Amino acid sequence: MTRDSAGGSGDSKDGNVSVVYDLAPDCTASDVEPNRPYLASINGIVEYGIFVDLSENVSGLVHESVLEGTFSVGQELAVELEEVRDNGDMAFQPADVDLEEDDYTVEPVAHDYPLTGTDRLEANVGEQVHLEGEIVQIKQTGGPTIFHIADEYGVVPCAAFEEAGVRAYPSVEVGDIVRVTGTPETREESVQIEVDGLSKLDGEDATEARERLEAALEERAQPHDVDPLIEWPAFEKLRPNLMEVATLLRRTVLEGRPIRVRHHADGDGMCAAVPLQLALENFIAEVHQDENAPQHLIKRLPAKAPFYEMEDATRDLNFALEDRERHGQQLPLVLMLDNGSTAEDVPAYETLAHYDIPIVAIDHHHPDPDAVGGLLDAHVNPYLHDEDYRITTGMLCVELARMIDPDLTDDLRHVPAVAGVSDRSKADAMEQYLELAAENGYDEDRLRDVSEALDYAAFWLRYNSGDHLIQDVLELSDADEDRHRRLVTFLADRSRRDVDRQLNAAMNHVEHERLDSGVHLYRIDVENHAHRFTYPAPGKTTGEIHDRKIQETGDPVITVGYGPDFAVLRSDGVRLDIPRMVSELEAEIPGGGVSGGGHLVVGSIKFVKGKRQDVIDALVEKMAAADIDEALSSAAPLEN
Amino acid sequence: MTRDSAGGSGDSKDGNVSVVYDLAPDCTASDVEPNRPYLASINGIVEYGIFVDLSENVSGLVHESVLEGTFSVGQELAVELEEVRDNGDMAFQPADVDLEEDDYTVEPVAHDYPLTGTDRLEANVGEQVHLEGEIVQIKQTGGPTIFHIADEYGVVPCAAFEEAGVRAYPSVEVGDIVRVTGTPETREESVQIEVDGLSKLDGEDATEARERLEAALEERAQPHDVDPLIEWPAFEKLRPNLMEVATLLRRTVLEGRPIRVRHHADGDGMCAAVPLQLALENFIAEVHQDENAPQHLIKRLPAKAPFYEMEDATRDLNFALEDRERHGQQLPLVLMLDNGSTAEDVPAYETLAHYDIPIVAIDHHHPDPDAVGGLLDAHVNPYLHDEDYRITTGMLCVELARMIDPDLTDDLRHVPAVAGVSDRSKADAMEQYLELAAENGYDEDRLRDVSEALDYAAFWLRYNSGDHLIQDVLELSDADEDRHRRLVTFLADRSRRDVDRQLNAAMNHVEHERLDSGVHLYRIDVENHAHRFTYPAPGKTTGEIHDRKIQETGDPVITVGYGPDFAVLRSDGVRLDIPRMVSELEAEIPGGGVSGGGHLVVGSIKFVKGKRQDVIDALVEKMAAADIDEALSSAAPLEN
Amino acid sequence: MTRDSAGGSGDSKDGNVSVVYDLAPDCTASDVEPNRPYLASINGIVEYGIFVDLSENVSGLVHESVLEGTFSVGQELAVELEEVRDNGDMAFQPADVDLEEDDYTVEPVAHDYPLTGTDRLEANVGEQVHLEGEIVQIKQTGGPTIFHIADEYGVVPCAAFEEAGVRAYPSVEVGDIVRVTGTPETREESVQIEVDGLSKLDGEDATEARERLEAALEERAQPHDVDPLIEWPAFEKLRPNLMEVATLLRRTVLEGRPIRVRHHADGDGMCAAVPLQLALENFIAEVHQDENAPQHLIKRLPAKAPFYEMEDATRDLNFALEDRERHGQQLPLVLMLDNGSTAEDVPAYETLAHYDIPIVAIDHHHPDPDAVGGLLDAHVNPYLHDEDYRITTGMLCVELARMIDPDLTDDLRHVPAVAGVSDRSKADAMEQYLELAAENGYDEDRLRDVSEALDYAAFWLRYNSGDHLIQDVLELSDADEDRHRRLVTFLADRSRRDVDRQLNAAMNHVEHERLDSGVHLYRIDVENHAHRFTYPAPGKTTGEIHDRKIQETGDPVITVGYGPDFAVLRSDGVRLDIPRMVSELEAEIPGGGVSGGGHLVVGSIKFVKGKRQDVIDALVEKMAAADIDEALSSAAPLEN
Repeated sequence: MTRDSAGGSGDSKDGNVSVVYDLAPDCTASDVEPNRPYLASINGIVEYGIFVDLSENVSGLVHESVLEGTFSVGQELAVELEEVRDNGDMAFQPADVDLEEDDYTVEPVAHDYPLTGTDRLEANVGEQVHLEGEIVQIKQTGGPTIFHIADEYGVVPCAAFEEAGVRAYPSVEVGDIVRVTGTPETREESVQIEVDGLSKLDGEDATEARERLEAALEERAQPHDVDPLIEWPAFEKLRPNLMEVATLLRRTVLEGRPIRVRHHADGDGMCAAVPLQLALENFIAEVHQDENAPQHLIKRLPAKAPFYEMEDATRDLNFALEDRERHGQQLPLVLMLDNGSTAEDVPAYETLAHYDIPIVAIDHHHPDPDAVGGLLDAHVNPYLHDEDYRITTGMLCVELARMIDPDLTDDLRHVPAVAGVSDRSKADAMEQYLELAAENGYDEDRLRDVSEALDYAAFWLRYNSGDHLIQDVLELSDADEDRHRRLVTFLADRSRRDVDRQLNAAMNHVEHERLDSGVHLYRIDVENHAHRFTYPAPGKTTGEIHDRKIQETGDPVITVGYGPDFAVLRSDGVRLDIPRMVSELEAEIPGGGVSGGGHLVVGSIKFVKGKRQDVIDALVEKMAAADIDEALSSAAPLEN
Repeated sequence: MTRDSAGGSGDSKDGNVSVVYDLAPDCTASDVEPNRPYLASINGIVEYGIFVDLSENVSGLVHESVLEGTFSVGQELAVELEEVRDNGDMAFQPADVDLEEDDYTVEPVAHDYPLTGTDRLEANVGEQVHLEGEIVQIKQTGGPTIFHIADEYGVVPCAAFEEAGVRAYPSVEVGDIVRVTGTPETREESVQIEVDGLSKLDGEDATEARERLEAALEERAQPHDVDPLIEWPAFEKLRPNLMEVATLLRRTVLEGRPIRVRHHADGDGMCAAVPLQLALENFIAEVHQDENAPQHLIKRLPAKAPFYEMEDATRDLNFALEDRERHGQQLPLVLMLDNGSTAEDVPAYETLAHYDIPIVAIDHHHPDPDAVGGLLDAHVNPYLHDEDYRITTGMLCVELARMIDPDLTDDLRHVPAVAGVSDRSKADAMEQYLELAAENGYDEDRLRDVSEALDYAAFWLRYNSGDHLIQDVLELSDADEDRHRRLVTFLADRSRRDVDRQLNAAMNHVEHERLDSGVHLYRIDVENHAHRFTYPAPGKTTGEIHDRKIQETGDPVITVGYGPDFAVLRSDGVRLDIPRMVSELEAEIPGGGVSGGGHLVVGSIKFVKGKRQDVIDALVEKMAAADIDEALSSAAPLEN
Repeated sequence: MTRDSAGGSGDSKDGNVSVVYDLAPDCTASDVEPNRPYLASINGIVEYGIFVDLSENVSGLVHESVLEGTFSVGQELAVELEEVRDNGDMAFQPADVDLEEDDYTVEPVAHDYPLTGTDRLEANVGEQVHLEGEIVQIKQTGGPTIFHIADEYGVVPCAAFEEAGVRAYPSVEVGDIVRVTGTPETREESVQIEVDGLSKLDGEDATEARERLEAALEERAQPHDVDPLIEWPAFEKLRPNLMEVATLLRRTVLEGRPIRVRHHADGDGMCAAVPLQLALENFIAEVHQDENAPQHLIKRLPAKAPFYEMEDATRDLNFALEDRERHGQQLPLVLMLDNGSTAEDVPAYETLAHYDIPIVAIDHHHPDPDAVGGLLDAHVNPYLHDEDYRITTGMLCVELARMIDPDLTDDLRHVPAVAGVSDRSKADAMEQYLELAAENGYDEDRLRDVSEALDYAAFWLRYNSGDHLIQDVLELSDADEDRHRRLVTFLADRSRRDVDRQLNAAMNHVEHERLDSGVHLYRIDVENHAHRFTYPAPGKTTGEIHDRKIQETGDPVITVGYGPDFAVLRSDGVRLDIPRMVSELEAEIPGGGVSGGGHLVVGSIKFVKGKRQDVIDALVEKMAAADIDEALSSAAPLEN
């Protein structure tokens, strides 16, 4: 006799070696297949045959008519199914393997439990179920260990108790495929499975399950192939890119990974971030058997700077590491919106990269793909497709939100127009967006009011996301229309009154100069001639002065608002290239500490206080050398 | 036969239409009134009469002697009560309505359960009770829905379970009157009713219950009619006003609405806010069957600015909307103390107004009732009664706190004197307040120490309310007297040492000028000649310089402390009108960006940095033109 | 008969008065001692004697042979044990006290339960146990009262329910010694005892228990007597001091008191604080039957200023008072690391002193023991032992951490070298520390990288402790080595790049002057010629300039980096005494508002903006007068 112990891989060797199947104790009659030799143990001998056990639940008679030789109780032999009687009794016959003489390998057979998907738990509360899935989070409480398990249908918390505060199933880790037996119970905040048993799948079982899960996840991650709100050839170039991001985000949710949204705190940034937040919250709620999952798994954070600041990235990382420690959460995916395309983002990205935190940027600022490309898991930017800032991030993200949750469509029809108005987009699609908005009750005045109200609210919210207030301003998520209208009117009026107040103080101090190129140059010292630390901030103050001066003197116009160590630039009708000017100034003015960026014709520059005069002089010289180009217009103001 | 289905309104029509009452299945004998026709169903016929059922619990005999005609089991007829026998058996007789022939309407009768008030729940833990009240908060958890219900006696949480995370009784909303059947249970943080049934009352029942609740609330909201701590005619003018606010605040608590207190972060502001916070906490604890209710329902927040800043209002609104979303709380009442009377408060108020958030202001700063009047639900200010800032907010609020909870009286006797000393009040009542304080162990030195200690602690607490520390300084809420004394001495000494340190740096740089009117004008550049970002802030620094200069040169004195974009003004013995001067400067200096306010003779002004010289020159000119008036004295310093 | 009621003290009076012992109802046979008179009550009279009860569980026969006189059921008499039969039956005989005739006092005897230590609770879950200990925390919830009780082995929460939200055992307070009967149960976050009975021990019982607990605590508080990582005579002088602090800290943990660590936010400060935090967390976890105890009981907070700011102290006090109110926690011990030795710390210390908050400082900055000595419960500082800043706080605290938890040793071998490199220590032990680090894979380049990475991470973390990030940088607490290496390289590179960027802006503006003494003096206006509000801060910027200038021109060098109201000083090879210079300037420049401090040859000075020129001129004059001393070298940069 030679018994080989076969691994789970179950590769049967050459023809000479037989395979004998060994049922696990919990196997039932349904696990027995015809024409297969099973290991059996004799538990009784009677006149008309012998009784054999194949598992705790599978026994049967081998009739004396098919037996040869002598047997003793406890002896093992190989049998195969002869028949199942009408009453369920099973009859076996000796299989063609002699355990004493032949070479054979033993193949264990696990009970093939019918699996209950996480979508059917509520219907099975209180009854034992089995499920298979991937571990996506492990939280050790002082009581049980909570495994969050994702299967084809969703994610469910499973509580396993070993001893108070002691990790149950310590060899199981995030990413493992497991089979769980347990009982769904209704808990305060979720349906939770009380675990009776949990085993890690290995070998073929794991591979098979992983493939099945992977296929299901892939399918479930598929975004909805919605028609864009308007027909727009330029957008079509970016659409495949957005579909990929939609897939990635849906998959992130399905895998139980948190999402941290960092967005530019202006009108376009909020038109991008808020619809996406709502779409993702809806999808999280659909996937997770946990009332509080959306609250735990997505967080939206406005950013004042036009890039991802090290301080924000460090804080994000710090919170992520704490959440992992305390709640066993995976580290988040970071989603940069209307921000995140430039070299200034690199230090923050590299910091996160050390923790393998995936990062996605959707932006319409002039990108530096060489700098950020390798650090981003996905990068959507019109410039990468020969388009430019006129396709705003809000326009892109409304479509992205609809790919994730198309049910939001009716709520979002006016949002791209708000984004476009906020960023003064001159996209060819603006006309269609404005029409679409008008059909939904938003004429241009109302759009401008909403845009103004967003600016004002964002300023006072500072670092708070102000979810409800912003949703009311954007009339999203069941906002009361009447309140929305009154609120928008009020905030927009207030904003304009504060802008007027600021400009009353500032306009007298705007210095005018006609450059040789014919460009009108306006300069304002916002440190000395504007209110500090209040609304509007220097960027918007400069932009508003610029707009008024265009009215007065007409194109081409450049406006510079400067403080002790910064300047904000706006231009219309001039072919500026601010990113290049910044690079040149950096090189030309030693000790100037120049840095900055933005769009081509609107941006901001920083320098050291003591070199202000030199930097601004050099800047003006460069501006004077710039060509006039009436097509170019400044987009949204930059905050600083 | 014509059976009209009558609505809940139960209006009986003209004389021809009879009303027949239909008992609900759970009605008992106590619901049956004499001389009323009831719908009955025959359930047995015997020789001596017929047995009828009026409800599951109400049956009886109609004797054959009063019957005419023939009957069958199951047949309906109208009966009325004949008598209730000693053994409880009921006898009926046919009513004067023939269901076959007459027109009639059916009026349903609900079982008149004896109601258990929320004041008697602890005595009924584990037994089924019934209660009626108004829904004041609905919190959807992942498990049950929690309805907070207010009846005549208090507010109790009621947990109704439909399905995990699914809203129970979805048609019921905050503000509805409901009847609840359920079982009070002791929970970790409260007594809570486990709901067996909940029904919304309609029509007359609702009207009746609402009137009953309203009457009870009105009565319970009545403040205590306490005698003021001292007799003071000037105060009497404001007393009815304060009684109204006391009623409003008690009612706010009874209705389960949260309260957010925003107060000026100085001595008077804290003497106003802290006693009121304690009184309201006590009343909340009395009303709510929830240990944590005071913590959830009242929050005190100091404000640095002399008005309600947009940033604070936006933050308050944001939190309120989040609390509504997460905990189903009503939006709060905002209570402005020692602050909130001027046009500068309008933007903040208007922001809140869009969410119908009630606002109450109690203040003694020079008010602009035209600006704020329409935005406030109540406004108490001595100026509205021909009194002035000498009646400090702390004096008013100590009386207000006592109207809400008179048991605080013994703890509060010294507090008006602290408030008066803090604000240097020259009220005619100061003498009496000082005497009262002296009787309670507070001589003037100790009062000044407490006032100084409050200033110092408030500065370092920044945006924290520092509840315990401030209570220890004010010797409130069971503060240990010994610690209180040592702490006050220490903080006051520290404060004086830091003031001395500051003045050591600054006094040499104070510029003196004798105006033509004879007024001594002192100026100090606090940006260049005082420590920045530390204690004492520019307002207090200027005030302390002013006080020392009065000692040196005597009245009349004006002191101006200026920074790059602000100036702080203090005056004694001069008839200034700072609010008017600010308005004039605003008009006279284009591009100056002047704003500001305060009391008549003490205040602060903001302007743009580049116009400082112009603004201060113009200001001095106006001061030079002001009349001398020895009665006028600067009150408390303003922080900025 | 004269029965005196004896107190618990049990002092028997003069010879004439007998003592009769009275068993409590729950006493068992084990409580009965031979030769002692016990109070007994007759419950049956039979032919052969009388049956007596001594307690509910203790009865026995008094044989007629030893009886005299007549007896009745219910009558009391004094008996003593005659024998215990084999079957456990007890026989008594009359004691030598006649209750009718003699004077006697009654001494109650409590059942002497076998106590279960808190170390054996898990083994007794579900079974009633008894334990004795000191109350260290009382938290009133809306349900039960939670008493945290410390015995010889640890601390356990005990839940006693009186009525919802009502304080159980209201006479029992923190600090009392109690005996508890109850059942250990497994809870979500802990093993907790459900209390059946709790009694305060008085008199001898309390004294005895307290002595037993005290002896056990004292023994358990003993630190581990580990050999220092290196042999170092200078360190030996401080070692007994550190052992005392280790004892104090272990004892603080054993008594359930929280610990709040405030440390200088630089490399040395973190090398001191993080190992200590880990050691204390481990010890807390060992002592407390509560998963979350480390999280609740220790908090590490970085401080930017080189002293304990009033704002930080006020915030710490405020949180401590809130935690006491909400969770019944004791007020914390404050542990100052790499900070806290100077007069500037006094106001903060005095504030905490009013609440009897113990404070320990471990520091290597030049101390002012006269100022802080009386305010500190322990003060470890090399200057107090004729050593100096070259023994860094990190070096001290690594040894302290090992005294508390020696199992950390293997993780910490490189940390003193990191601390030394961070603070540029020229300690004679540096060579040994560097060797030790090298043996553990840390060559000097890697040490410098870690130091640089700590600076950079600390800057961006601002007020966050960033536990995981810093542990990864220091390769502590199971940090992944590969991530640690990549992270350190990245952060160090970034830091150097930002420093280069800063110095590119600044170096051109450094002013050079050769003092008469031959010292090279370099000055830089960091306000005007460096980037503000970003990394590196003025302190580090000045330090880096200083280092480059030493390379250029060689010793002796002084570098001054000044802003509008501060200056940072670095010197090498010059005998400066910055603390003395600050005192002199304070006196010499009226209205200058000078303050400051630091080490002898490196420090920072504050002044009022308007006196900058005067202060810096006077400072340079003093520097010019200083002797050259090549041995003196600047230590770590100071942040400001």
